[in-house]
Amino acid sequence: MRLRNIPGAQEKLAAYPQYVVDAAQAQAGKWQERFPKAQALHLEIGSGKGRFITEMAKAHPDINYIAMEVQTSVALRILERQLEADLPNLQILHGNGASVEALFAEDKIDRIYLNFSDPWPKARHTKRRLTSPTFLESYEKILKDTGEIHFKTDNQGLFEYSLHSLSTYGMSFANVSLDLHNSAFEGNIMTEYEEKFSQKGHRIYRLEARFK
Amino acid sequence: MRLRNIPGAQEKLAAYPQYVVDAAQAQAGKWQERFPKAQALHLEIGSGKGRFITEMAKAHPDINYIAMEVQTSVALRILERQLEADLPNLQILHGNGASVEALFAEDKIDRIYLNFSDPWPKARHTKRRLTSPTFLESYEKILKDTGEIHFKTDNQGLFEYSLHSLSTYGMSFANVSLDLHNSAFEGNIMTEYEEKFSQKGHRIYRLEARFK
Ligand SMILES: C[S@@+](CC[C@H](N)C(=O)[O-])C[C@H]1O[C@@H](n2cnc3c(N)ncnc32)[C@H](O)[C@@H]1O
Ligand SMILES: C[S@@+](CC[C@H](N)C(=O)[O-])C[C@H]1O[C@@H](n2cnc3c(N)ncnc32)[C@H](O)[C@@H]1O
Repeated sequence: MRLRNIPGAQEKLAAYPQYVVDAAQAQAGKWQERFPKAQALHLEIGSGKGRFITEMAKAHPDINYIAMEVQTSVALRILERQLEADLPNLQILHGNGASVEALFAEDKIDRIYLNFSDPWPKARHTKRRLTSPTFLESYEKILKDTGEIHFKTDNQGLFEYSLHSLSTYGMSFANVSLDLHNSAFEGNIMTEYEEKFSQKGHRIYRLEARFK
Repeated sequence: MRLRNIPGAQEKLAAYPQYVVDAAQAQAGKWQERFPKAQALHLEIGSGKGRFITEMAKAHPDINYIAMEVQTSVALRILERQLEADLPNLQILHGNGASVEALFAEDKIDRIYLNFSDPWPKARHTKRRLTSPTFLESYEKILKDTGEIHFKTDNQGLFEYSLHSLSTYGMSFANVSLDLHNSAFEGNIMTEYEEKFSQKGHRIYRLEARFK
């Protein structure tokens, strides 16, 4: 996801502190205070324009959602959605997934969503993939024992890599689907990328994973 | 794989004791004695008509192969190939994969091949799948520590199930391919089922797995 730099984006994000948290200023251990109710906490890393997480927050008022996005102009798109929807159970976190350990180790997350993460196909960029071992280490630290990672992508190489990386880390898989849109899975909420690439005929891969 | 019952098949298998071992009579701990040289031991469970394992045995004279097949008339087809090829490093084992623990625990296997195993799609038949937990337990007992399972299939449901079952058992995956025939994998030897179903346009899935 690349958007042209939007002038004033940073300022606009800063103007809505009730909706947007800047990673640099986030206060560990205090996430539930940002929501009307303390309830299960689900984090999406790399939310893009935020369609998935906004729909999820609408559908599940009993869950608190955090949409994390590193690009300023993209995070702004999530804010624009949220300004319309005004969902009490959605917060936007402007920052890099590489910092989740410091941000969430005290709060503990029930579920992490990774949707259509950047594939970084070159071997020398393996470490940037959101399913590479260093990221898994930090996910393990912020997830509750029963916590899960829900991952979907159309990228065959990234999915193959992730099956290797997660299993080698010791994770177990459930509800694996090698063709989500032709499966029995119910209640799927599409992301922007999912709509675009499934329309082009790409298969969608999905799995749920746990640290045992 | 279903073949009409071939009259006299059992007798013909029994007539070639130098090539065919009957599971009921197999002597644990003595597998290497059946080959001219003691060398790495690879076992295929559910060999069908034996094209894969025969080609492998030709290509790798430095490995000893055992082709295990439960159906008498199908095992006979492997024997017919072997009567033509006369490969010193191939033995045919007429028996059920459910008995490998008793057969091989003393010998130790370097690699197990599962190719296009019967999918048993009904939930109540889960236990018959060659990648279900009871089978994995016996594979763990017969494989060397560094031993691997190499699994390929065109059956999406069986592959999804196996990703779940093996990872939940604690296994790690390497060289996962979600479309083997359009991958960088080199030296693939096709099985009978692989040829048939890839010609019909099915994708071939493949993985290698280890008990950590
Ligand atoms: C390919 S897009 C997919 C967006 C959305 N999830 C979807 O499915 O439509 C990946 C998004 O993840 C963001 N991203 C990539 N790496 C990130 C990281 N380390 N931390 C936070 N966001 C990241 C990118 O800026 C981009 O918006
Ligand atoms: C679908 S066929 C595939 C044959 C061959 N591997 C191929 O790819 O062409 C499965 C074969 O496995 C055999 N088989 C199934 N369960 C078995 C078991 N428990 N032990 C040994 N052989 C088995 C069947 O008899 C059949 O020949």
